[in-house]
Amino acid sequence: MVREDEVRPGEKAIAWPGAEDAGLVFIGRIRTPWTNRLDCPRQGRLDGPVCRIEVFEPWAEALAGIDNYDRVEVIYWLHRSRRDILLQSPRSDGETRGAFSLRSPVRPNPIATSMVALVGIEGSTLLVRGLDCLDGTPLIDLKPDRCQFTPLAPPTPGDAQIGEP
Amino acid sequence: MVREDEVRPGEKAIAWPGAEDAGLVFIGRIRTPWTNRLDCPRQGRLDGPVCRIEVFEPWAEALAGIDNYDRVEVIYWLHRSRRDILLQSPRSDGETRGAFSLRSPVRPNPIATSMVALVGIEGSTLLVRGLDCLDGTPLIDLKPDRCQFTPLAPPTPGDAQIGEP
Repeated sequence: MVREDEVRPGEKAIAWPGAEDAGLVFIGRIRTPWTNRLDCPRQGRLDGPVCRIEVFEPWAEALAGIDNYDRVEVIYWLHRSRRDILLQSPRSDGETRGAFSLRSPVRPNPIATSMVALVGIEGSTLLVRGLDCLDGTPLIDLKPDRCQFTPLAPPTPGDAQIGEP
Repeated sequence: MVREDEVRPGEKAIAWPGAEDAGLVFIGRIRTPWTNRLDCPRQGRLDGPVCRIEVFEPWAEALAGIDNYDRVEVIYWLHRSRRDILLQSPRSDGETRGAFSLRSPVRPNPIATSMVALVGIEGSTLLVRGLDCLDGTPLIDLKPDRCQFTPLAPPTPGDAQIGEP
């Protein structure tokens, strides 16, 4: 059995130090077809099922203008994930990799990001394709796809700053 | 003056409800050339200056294998940002957009994501190009670029699940 809460051979968990450096507010909830972690896709696909992103009050007003984009970055909180396993064995074969070289849900701050296709808007709910998470996953942010977005704010000195080759 | 802490004409701030739904641990610190928010690039560029991502203990072990990738997704906490302005006027002209249709640092959960070029590793410090943030910004996660990463875990039923056209 994989992708449940076990520590597999070769993996390394640490004593969890706590996580109080900053606090998150859950701004919505994601509705998907997946109610069991073992069924969730490993990565979303843009031809996948339509999922619903329900934005709670008072945050819904911040959706104004999102219809200018058809690709949206979704940031969500993997509320069922362990956070303490730094070395992981995705194939359960004793070979390990660090959490930061994997897109595993198990990580010190279990934040996921997906680029999704925005296919509809119903009030304060977005209809999207491309998610991979459990039904009921807490939403923490939405942003236009970085490739579609052009900053509206005035230029800054840093915009033109190029590094040494 | 823009990009400081003011609320500009037309903008809408809400009474902040608090943020205690989940807690973050800062796993490192980002070193950049920018010490003033007004100088930071609006978006990073891959030919920008080399910045340093210092990963703290005990998290550094989780970097194992990151050298398999030359593009890394960096997730960081915009510790100087207001969180309560839902409608924003990036051009300070009275026209507003919702925070979720902007990549502004001001958002309910001030999390930023960048795709950077990994140009070097020195112990537990990554050298990267493509960041846009203030010197001293707290780090919250690192992941391989989703386009470069192929899952190592066994397939799941969701992997093959396609939606209605």
